[in-house]
Amino acid sequence: MNAEQIFLSNQKQIFDDFFTFLRFPSIATDSQYLQDVQDCASWLKAFIENCGLEVQQWDEQNIPTLLATDLRAGPHKKTLLLYAHYDVQPVDPLNLWTTPPFEPSLRDGNIYARGASDDKGQCFYTLCAIRDFIKHYGSLPINLKFLIEGEEESGSVGLSKLLKTKKESLQADHLLVVDSGMEKLDQPTLALGARGILTMTLKLIEGHGDMHSGHCGGLAINPNRALVQLLAKLHHENGRVAIEGFYDDVKDPTAEERAGLDCHFDLQAFEACHGFQPRGMEEGVDPITSNWFRPTLEINGLSGGYGGEGFKTVIPSVALAKLSCRLVPDQKPDKIAQLVTDFLKQHTPASLKLEIEIHPGAAPGFRRLPNSSLVQLVSQSYEDVFKAPCKKILMGGSIPIVPQLMEAAHAEVLLIGTALPTNCIHAPNEHFSTESFMKGYLTIFRLLELYQVEAQKNKT
Amino acid sequence: MNAEQIFLSNQKQIFDDFFTFLRFPSIATDSQYLQDVQDCASWLKAFIENCGLEVQQWDEQNIPTLLATDLRAGPHKKTLLLYAHYDVQPVDPLNLWTTPPFEPSLRDGNIYARGASDDKGQCFYTLCAIRDFIKHYGSLPINLKFLIEGEEESGSVGLSKLLKTKKESLQADHLLVVDSGMEKLDQPTLALGARGILTMTLKLIEGHGDMHSGHCGGLAINPNRALVQLLAKLHHENGRVAIEGFYDDVKDPTAEERAGLDCHFDLQAFEACHGFQPRGMEEGVDPITSNWFRPTLEINGLSGGYGGEGFKTVIPSVALAKLSCRLVPDQKPDKIAQLVTDFLKQHTPASLKLEIEIHPGAAPGFRRLPNSSLVQLVSQSYEDVFKAPCKKILMGGSIPIVPQLMEAAHAEVLLIGTALPTNCIHAPNEHFSTESFMKGYLTIFRLLELYQVEAQKNKT
Repeated sequence: MNAEQIFLSNQKQIFDDFFTFLRFPSIATDSQYLQDVQDCASWLKAFIENCGLEVQQWDEQNIPTLLATDLRAGPHKKTLLLYAHYDVQPVDPLNLWTTPPFEPSLRDGNIYARGASDDKGQCFYTLCAIRDFIKHYGSLPINLKFLIEGEEESGSVGLSKLLKTKKESLQADHLLVVDSGMEKLDQPTLALGARGILTMTLKLIEGHGDMHSGHCGGLAINPNRALVQLLAKLHHENGRVAIEGFYDDVKDPTAEERAGLDCHFDLQAFEACHGFQPRGMEEGVDPITSNWFRPTLEINGLSGGYGGEGFKTVIPSVALAKLSCRLVPDQKPDKIAQLVTDFLKQHTPASLKLEIEIHPGAAPGFRRLPNSSLVQLVSQSYEDVFKAPCKKILMGGSIPIVPQLMEAAHAEVLLIGTALPTNCIHAPNEHFSTESFMKGYLTIFRLLELYQVEAQKNKT
Repeated sequence: MNAEQIFLSNQKQIFDDFFTFLRFPSIATDSQYLQDVQDCASWLKAFIENCGLEVQQWDEQNIPTLLATDLRAGPHKKTLLLYAHYDVQPVDPLNLWTTPPFEPSLRDGNIYARGASDDKGQCFYTLCAIRDFIKHYGSLPINLKFLIEGEEESGSVGLSKLLKTKKESLQADHLLVVDSGMEKLDQPTLALGARGILTMTLKLIEGHGDMHSGHCGGLAINPNRALVQLLAKLHHENGRVAIEGFYDDVKDPTAEERAGLDCHFDLQAFEACHGFQPRGMEEGVDPITSNWFRPTLEINGLSGGYGGEGFKTVIPSVALAKLSCRLVPDQKPDKIAQLVTDFLKQHTPASLKLEIEIHPGAAPGFRRLPNSSLVQLVSQSYEDVFKAPCKKILMGGSIPIVPQLMEAAHAEVLLIGTALPTNCIHAPNEHFSTESFMKGYLTIFRLLELYQVEAQKNKT
């Protein structure tokens, strides 16, 4: 039997178990679901034990983290660390769901449920593939560690803490984050990196209460005016961030790096999706370079005075902005936070009060080289399963826990998965096709086979 | 009984009725309060009829305007037109109110409620004083018209239209706008003019929905960024408005005008009230000149993306600003609106959509000369009540309807009132002291007595 035949012969039981997994409303961000989160973890722990793996449960802030292991390959073999999560996003607006989010429903080849794609689906096909590989071949060709956390959707706060004390348990050669996706089902895609992130809130404050724009107009420095003047200084006319030192640690990608990535920007797809052409790049920078290799400084929120219907002749006492930076590798979040803070302080009028709050959860960016053995191994397994060349891309977004995981595990990292942009993750009617599930399963199974081939080569 | 004894003997009933008046959330600018605005007008109409005055109700865009009259003095007597308004400002931020804005609360001699000062308080003491004068003396020495509108805080749109058809009903010799104030409770003040106003909303729009700052960061022109860059261009470093032609029609005050006005700026009082020193003047311009004789361009509202707790990595599709100009005499609102619009269009990036809405209710500024007979009459009544010399000032704020009212009534105008700068009008915890209320009542009562004295003089 090949992997596909194995899957098809087990299919009914696999989806029965998957539906049970999906029925737990494991919304970790909402404390009223705490018991459900814990029940979900308990069920998952028992399921993994039945797969023949050992499981450790780490409790931090009441949300269990599971580490499933099979280390029987022995110290001379490679170690693969996998990562997924069993917590899910909240479900509102509930009324937009066709069937209830925690009553999984199979329609037209799609499984509808919160978490069906993100990330219970990907977590579960990975587990099933590992179990069935062991059953079929008798053992794993590598040491396997599968870390499954319960707070990904709420900032991985517990896991961040655990990583400091559990480094040894997580040591690995390769780290695969199974929480990513591909553009289309016939187009396997590998994300070789993501940008980092840093977020902050700033306030400009004058006096002790909102003012009347007649009584104080011409007397007060309007905090709204001071704010726009301050924020307008953040960028040069050419689109570059004007903060001294901001780009100091930005390294241009090498020709080799570019050559190994699929750097084609699909202008038509972008415009169809968003309704405008990309014009937010620095002068002379193409869209792919801008989104993958360059950091940004965005104003994600502006608020001051009255923004509702009609008009209010107010001079606000407080004007607020939310800023974020997407960071590229080697830009240290702490250093950038300091540079931005210094710049804001330097350009705020002395008579206004400036308050800056750097939010927790900042993370650096990372990118791996396209020619690493891990990339080649994973590409190969995708291509074997999908019979199509595997695209290599970078993410403009961020997965803040990944750099911490990389550092703790000392491992080479990749983001993989078979989620599609059309899966409605984080939205009503989230779904995952049975085909995506099977393809994910087959890719993991194939990857383990490739490790086996590699191990046998090394032996001979 | 003198006026003060009359007030004190009626006090309980007066404040009971005042509290009823304050309980109506008559926020005319927000359409969800339409019924409350109408209920407020109905209640007020019935109250005025009980005072023995005749009342006409004019409905324009569903917001009633009331005209209370007592014309029994006859055509040979002078006619006094009074003006006040019963609509109030919105109440947000609601969480900063100590007690709910529409549940009046008496604490330490102050009545806390939205509208307690602006302008229900001043409207109501005026009504009570007229009623009690008629009750005490049997009749009025002049023909009285009291116009009470319901859209002052949202630009007097309905009244503006009415003024075109109701000129005859509003003919008067003197027009007193009871919506003004004094610096301190022991310092009667007369406002001889006010600045005009022009308000607008502008939006910068990109694409058809909010974007993810990872996926689109470095591709989208963040409308928030475009907005701050656009708005930062509105002023020069020296504080002057950077729009060409903005100051073309601004005339400096004459030496005579300055001499008749109390041009002393009380720095200490300002700082105590607002918690900061005035630093928002154009370079080289003193505070009084800046607030009375110079126009402004303010950013009254900023809104774009996420401004709440925590963080959201959004690039908004729409960024919004609310702008207003305070205008001085001879600056025409239409012309200034065009200049501002042209400037905004000229400086908006071509790939973003700019929407500008000029709100109705724009009005020019006005200033009257300090030596008129009306000024002398009103000064005298203030000085008789307060036992202190009456200051003559200009208002930095605006009462947009006044220039139109002046024109419709063909009357000499003055702005009067006992509101204090510390009353938190347009802000949380608006309040009015019972003493301010009584002094306002006594001033109106005294003014009517002075008209009586004048009428008797003319008879003899």
